[in-house]
Amino acid sequence: MNVAVLGTGSVGRTVAGTIGSLGHEVRIGTRDVEALMARTDDAPTFAEWITTVTSVQAMTFKDAATFGEIVFNATSGTASLEALRAAGAANLAGKVIVDIANPLDFSKGFPPTLSVCNETSLAEQIQAAFPDARVVKTLNTVNASVMVDPVSVGGGEHDMFMAGDDDDAKRTVESILRDWFGWTRVTDLGDITNARGMEMYLPLWVRLYGAAGTGAFNIAIVR
Amino acid sequence: MNVAVLGTGSVGRTVAGTIGSLGHEVRIGTRDVEALMARTDDAPTFAEWITTVTSVQAMTFKDAATFGEIVFNATSGTASLEALRAAGAANLAGKVIVDIANPLDFSKGFPPTLSVCNETSLAEQIQAAFPDARVVKTLNTVNASVMVDPVSVGGGEHDMFMAGDDDDAKRTVESILRDWFGWTRVTDLGDITNARGMEMYLPLWVRLYGAAGTGAFNIAIVR
Repeated sequence: MNVAVLGTGSVGRTVAGTIGSLGHEVRIGTRDVEALMARTDDAPTFAEWITTVTSVQAMTFKDAATFGEIVFNATSGTASLEALRAAGAANLAGKVIVDIANPLDFSKGFPPTLSVCNETSLAEQIQAAFPDARVVKTLNTVNASVMVDPVSVGGGEHDMFMAGDDDDAKRTVESILRDWFGWTRVTDLGDITNARGMEMYLPLWVRLYGAAGTGAFNIAIVR
Repeated sequence: MNVAVLGTGSVGRTVAGTIGSLGHEVRIGTRDVEALMARTDDAPTFAEWITTVTSVQAMTFKDAATFGEIVFNATSGTASLEALRAAGAANLAGKVIVDIANPLDFSKGFPPTLSVCNETSLAEQIQAAFPDARVVKTLNTVNASVMVDPVSVGGGEHDMFMAGDDDDAKRTVESILRDWFGWTRVTDLGDITNARGMEMYLPLWVRLYGAAGTGAFNIAIVR
């Protein structure tokens, strides 16, 4: 499958690298490719990282979205709408957007707040801004390494959630979660308004991270 | 121990009844005792329920708080500050307030929103309003039956959190969670600002309830 991953941080890189390693063609989207390749403030730098993965190329948000049959939004939540506008509504129309982003705002320091929450969510804002796309919120409740390797934590015996208005899109995303990444416990919470709870879990996640000293964890529903 | 439980809904009744059954003297606080005893819109009614438990008496918020060496806030979150003001700052001074309440606002229908979140929390508002009390947020992440009987769910192998500024108060509350209710996995997240995450988890909890068809569940941290 031809896949677009928007965002070049640790989530974007981890998701793009994993999908590329499975034999899919991945285009990782960014605002300015030249600037991205020149960046030196990461370790490894993006230019170094991209030499270590297969079937991944960097291009603009627009070119990546045009290429992808499915689009992963792995941008910072506070920049997601701008990135998707740059990708272009026409290039997203009819496509599944796997919305991994969290609207975490670190501008006031720690703990971060959410730039949107409670009466709406980032996923709902994206769905409203791009009504012809099919947004599915998922994966935002774990860190990058757990997203693509759930078995690395507790043998995979923990839960991933999904929310979205389009049932076919959710079935597609569920297959990706299971077949590409190895998730065995996927709960479809319902329509896109369920993204509120998934995003509002992040302030607890951040503190659990602090208490555990690692982001390599997830929650399991116990009944 | 002499215990005050503010709030006469299912959480207040369950907590009060359980603590009374352990041999402690419990005073359950309400705004208007006469009105409470005359209510017929619950099943069982409060007047019926109180005949089924031991060592529990109903009185005003103020009288209950005066009686209690420790105070459980089991009121509706949107009414908690008013209830605690009625209890009286002088009657709460120096005491541990176990804040179980969630600021869920159902006034706009389902799903509920939070009446306070993100940059603060109900627990922080209570601590700020009653600086001489020692607020510990806990138990708000599970339903009433799980609060007092965690072993009823998955053998008790799931997690309870605490947040508060006073370490001695947290040690007292941890002992109560373990010795009175049977919690074996209690994580002290840190200061009272951690209550934000604990309260902002509720929108996810509400949807997990919907997906599971039962409130008898909790989350376990898997690493």
